[in-house]
Amino acid sequence: MARNGYIPHMYSHETTVRVRYAETDRMGYVYYGTYAQYFEVGRVEAMRSLGFPYLRMEREGVMLPVHDLTVNYHKPAFYDDLLTVRTVIPQLPAVRIRFVYEVRDEHGVLLTDAATTLVFIDRATNKPCRAPAELLEKMGPYFK
Amino acid sequence: MARNGYIPHMYSHETTVRVRYAETDRMGYVYYGTYAQYFEVGRVEAMRSLGFPYLRMEREGVMLPVHDLTVNYHKPAFYDDLLTVRTVIPQLPAVRIRFVYEVRDEHGVLLTDAATTLVFIDRATNKPCRAPAELLEKMGPYFK
Amino acid sequence: MARNGYIPHMYSHETTVRVRYAETDRMGYVYYGTYAQYFEVGRVEAMRSLGFPYLRMEREGVMLPVHDLTVNYHKPAFYDDLLTVRTVIPQLPAVRIRFVYEVRDEHGVLLTDAATTLVFIDRATNKPCRAPAELLEKMGPYFK
Amino acid sequence: MARNGYIPHMYSHETTVRVRYAETDRMGYVYYGTYAQYFEVGRVEAMRSLGFPYLRMEREGVMLPVHDLTVNYHKPAFYDDLLTVRTVIPQLPAVRIRFVYEVRDEHGVLLTDAATTLVFIDRATNKPCRAPAELLEKMGPYFK
Repeated sequence: MARNGYIPHMYSHETTVRVRYAETDRMGYVYYGTYAQYFEVGRVEAMRSLGFPYLRMEREGVMLPVHDLTVNYHKPAFYDDLLTVRTVIPQLPAVRIRFVYEVRDEHGVLLTDAATTLVFIDRATNKPCRAPAELLEKMGPYFK
Repeated sequence: MARNGYIPHMYSHETTVRVRYAETDRMGYVYYGTYAQYFEVGRVEAMRSLGFPYLRMEREGVMLPVHDLTVNYHKPAFYDDLLTVRTVIPQLPAVRIRFVYEVRDEHGVLLTDAATTLVFIDRATNKPCRAPAELLEKMGPYFK
Repeated sequence: MARNGYIPHMYSHETTVRVRYAETDRMGYVYYGTYAQYFEVGRVEAMRSLGFPYLRMEREGVMLPVHDLTVNYHKPAFYDDLLTVRTVIPQLPAVRIRFVYEVRDEHGVLLTDAATTLVFIDRATNKPCRAPAELLEKMGPYFK
Repeated sequence: MARNGYIPHMYSHETTVRVRYAETDRMGYVYYGTYAQYFEVGRVEAMRSLGFPYLRMEREGVMLPVHDLTVNYHKPAFYDDLLTVRTVIPQLPAVRIRFVYEVRDEHGVLLTDAATTLVFIDRATNKPCRAPAELLEKMGPYFK
């Protein structure tokens, strides 16, 4: 993504999720709480594509609980929709990392946008800590 | 609640939810997306206590999908915690209804606060509509 | 329950769960996988009523993962139904414990019956172990 | 699959699911009730690969609720595992359709096996009905 002389200032990644029957409700919509899982998939796949899977971070003793969540529901998603989740990391993380999400249907229509802040927690001390050096290194080229 | 000469300007209700094993994650915390269900329980029980159950509204042809959600996670909740969800309706609804939530543990410690806006939708037209007259009538005394 | 000269041969407990919107699907039914949570609530409340909460067992280093599950879905449950979950422990546990469940609606109609086997696992060795002595002691009077 | 003179007597399909954080529990395992969703993904993708998506069936007025479920949990699945769900339809459906499932980890180790029976229900009458003719036609070659 850092190509052609263009200097990016963010990291962006897209992945897809297929809506499960379990995730719909009797209105026929995807339940509003289900999107939290789609955002999770979005940020986890964004980190994997960066070369620093979330699981490795946990193995290195850093947890990343969610600090806040904001969601705007524009249009409903339905059963069996193949949704695209676009996840953006708008700035280099310090003690916190921010993710911004857009969920679109197969026609590119925006269904939901959202943002979360997560906090790096040192498992040993249970205190906030700085983002792992390796993660920052992987992210560096996207924020030059 | 509208007693002793005190003139309230909101409707407030408390209910409890017991954290299920299913709702925890490998961090040992309640998963951040699970709270959407607790807020649902909070507002549904608030409406039941008002004398206008959510189900009756659906039967009268009005749906109430969620328009936006904001959550602040202050402290984690854990397996088997008996949480108290306080739900406040801060103003009389028009086409939208706002709910504000606080989730506390058994010691009264605030774990999470949140807010949602929901929109009244006429099932026949699939368009926004005004809050049902009966709901407004039930809520009236709390907003004099 | 062990009273009036009647000698029981099982432990039985009833609890209720209110169906959440999140738990329904676009068919309007409670999703078939949701019942696993209701059975969890049933057995957890059965153990609490026995005086030996599941959480205490985990704190004493014993986990209780599910080994097998069988469910028969007779009739659907719907949004906002207040379901009764009857949980029976049909025999004194050894390395395994069996729970049998019946889920009924407000009219007493049987919606679902099920059974699970769970295995006591010693957290230190990650091997199966015998049921905690205190649990057996609490259960003794029901199986004389 | 119906090739090389081999005459099959079943339909079989494989798909993968990535374990979400939401799907784990405080034991660090995938929650036992979550597998119902994986089996759903398995049978839905099996039907899609047959050329008869589940959604089309619903659009033609036939629902397919689950009648019974049996699961054997051999080994736990963990966060971020890329699981393979193998779904087998062992015989041509009549009023019911049976699916048999195997969930394996990335090393091919069997974690869970299961079976479900689902019933074709005519939405108009809410009564059991025969499998749609088009589905039987698509399945025919696999059961000669």
